[in-house]
Amino acid sequence: MSNRITDLFNIKYPVIQAGMIWNSPWELASAVSNAGGLGIIGAASMYPEVLRTHIKRCHQATDQAFAVNVPLLYPDIDQLMGIIIEEGVKIVFTSAGNPEKWTSILKEKDIIVVHVVSSSKFAKKAESAGVDAIVAEGFEAGGHNGREETTTLCLIPAVAKEIGLPLLAAGGIATGASMMAAMVLGADGVQIGTRFAASLEASGHSNFKNKIVEISEGETKLTMKKTIPVRMIKNKFYEKINEAESRGASAEELGEILGRARAKKGMFEGDMDEGELEIGQVSALITEIKPAASIVADIMMEFRAAEESVAKFNLDY
Amino acid sequence: MSNRITDLFNIKYPVIQAGMIWNSPWELASAVSNAGGLGIIGAASMYPEVLRTHIKRCHQATDQAFAVNVPLLYPDIDQLMGIIIEEGVKIVFTSAGNPEKWTSILKEKDIIVVHVVSSSKFAKKAESAGVDAIVAEGFEAGGHNGREETTTLCLIPAVAKEIGLPLLAAGGIATGASMMAAMVLGADGVQIGTRFAASLEASGHSNFKNKIVEISEGETKLTMKKTIPVRMIKNKFYEKINEAESRGASAEELGEILGRARAKKGMFEGDMDEGELEIGQVSALITEIKPAASIVADIMMEFRAAEESVAKFNLDY
Repeated sequence: MSNRITDLFNIKYPVIQAGMIWNSPWELASAVSNAGGLGIIGAASMYPEVLRTHIKRCHQATDQAFAVNVPLLYPDIDQLMGIIIEEGVKIVFTSAGNPEKWTSILKEKDIIVVHVVSSSKFAKKAESAGVDAIVAEGFEAGGHNGREETTTLCLIPAVAKEIGLPLLAAGGIATGASMMAAMVLGADGVQIGTRFAASLEASGHSNFKNKIVEISEGETKLTMKKTIPVRMIKNKFYEKINEAESRGASAEELGEILGRARAKKGMFEGDMDEGELEIGQVSALITEIKPAASIVADIMMEFRAAEESVAKFNLDY
Repeated sequence: MSNRITDLFNIKYPVIQAGMIWNSPWELASAVSNAGGLGIIGAASMYPEVLRTHIKRCHQATDQAFAVNVPLLYPDIDQLMGIIIEEGVKIVFTSAGNPEKWTSILKEKDIIVVHVVSSSKFAKKAESAGVDAIVAEGFEAGGHNGREETTTLCLIPAVAKEIGLPLLAAGGIATGASMMAAMVLGADGVQIGTRFAASLEASGHSNFKNKIVEISEGETKLTMKKTIPVRMIKNKFYEKINEAESRGASAEELGEILGRARAKKGMFEGDMDEGELEIGQVSALITEIKPAASIVADIMMEFRAAEESVAKFNLDY
């Protein structure tokens, strides 16, 4: 029993755990991979030698496939990619940048390359660059996000129409029902961030995990649109950004307010007021912090329930 | 064969055509109702006596159920509601305002009342006010929109969890596949605007209908967030608004730029540069202008195909 995504990664379920900055260590990636999904180490918040340690430990913790996520704009990109190749990582997810250069280098080393996009235009470019699969991520996703603000519901059918590659849906997906919805729209699987950020194994601060469980609808916002748009929780830091944007502040001033290490301060160090707290809209549906393996099992149980619900629609065509 | 929505409205398919300003005359409403869905006359762009004519003609054109959509902030609301009651309309969709007062008045006359919301908080209020069903409309929808920017994918499961009433999903839905996705997420049916705006029977100018077919991803934007947020096509008028917002213009200045009758100028009179062109993100998927009955038939054919695709997911749980 298989589809294009389970075949490509040699995994049991087409459930991919997103490689989230400050939230995706080897503990999370290996737990998801051992549970039948694909775990991803988030390299964006790691110094090169820290990443090496996470890869080594992940290899020790699972004999299943796992991946590393690398934003292509990362300053130490050459060093990071060198470590990924040296340490025998078999799958790389790239984001935030042009995949052309690194796709061909990684493909030469027989590494599977998946690129994250926010539009079908970028999906087509990634397909031309030779990637093996696409993640199409909608407006509702946490963290950095596209400028066109296309939601997952509109994005997935648009991308599915334009490309022939295996397609993962991301943004707004946390349950087996939303996984089913994404697959009905043309995806072959899903990439889930927010729900795994609220797992025991995620490396975010407990304040942050509790916050994910606590917040409800309307408590995240896509902001910083004059620089790089990012979805974050509406806390005191957000209010400063919002006030500045409302009076027409420049990208430069916004950058000054942001300063350095805001994401670390919030998600990793647990400062819920002054930190940048990146999370998706779907956090409103998350009600508990659980082991990653239970999350994978729940998603598949929900997926099966969704499949059964379809049979009950009972429409007279 | 039935569900809560088909039973409530006594219709064949749970496909509701949105009552869109300048786009939803009796010709469209009756065509949708005759094809097995529920057609809605959009009263927001009609003088009271114009609405009366549309209701009378709709009664003549179909013996099936149809509805009228009324924004509760409409200045002539008492007069409009009086006409709706006098002319024997059986179903009213209300939006943009508190449903409390009018729900009880309409219910006394045995009229079915449905209220449009953008959050589960407002859904619960509408349920308390005694409405018969809810439309939950996501960020990707065209025209006026909620402040929380929750997308349909995140909104539908959240509202379904909070209310017991029949639920219609709106925003980003144009095909049978997206109808299936919405129903998997917990909706009992869908309200579709954009695809019906591109129907032969819609009353928008042909320039506007052609524009809907022509535009692609990223060519609409939710804007005017300091006044009443509205999703529109990025034309010359939008660029003026965008420039003003970017430098921090006040709600007052934005109101001056908007001026009067912008929506009529654009959608009804066909001025593609200076008019306000309200349409959903899903316009990117619309490729032709068709009779409304064909659209209903296509949606149900696509829905059946989506149902068959689910059976092929073939996952090993």
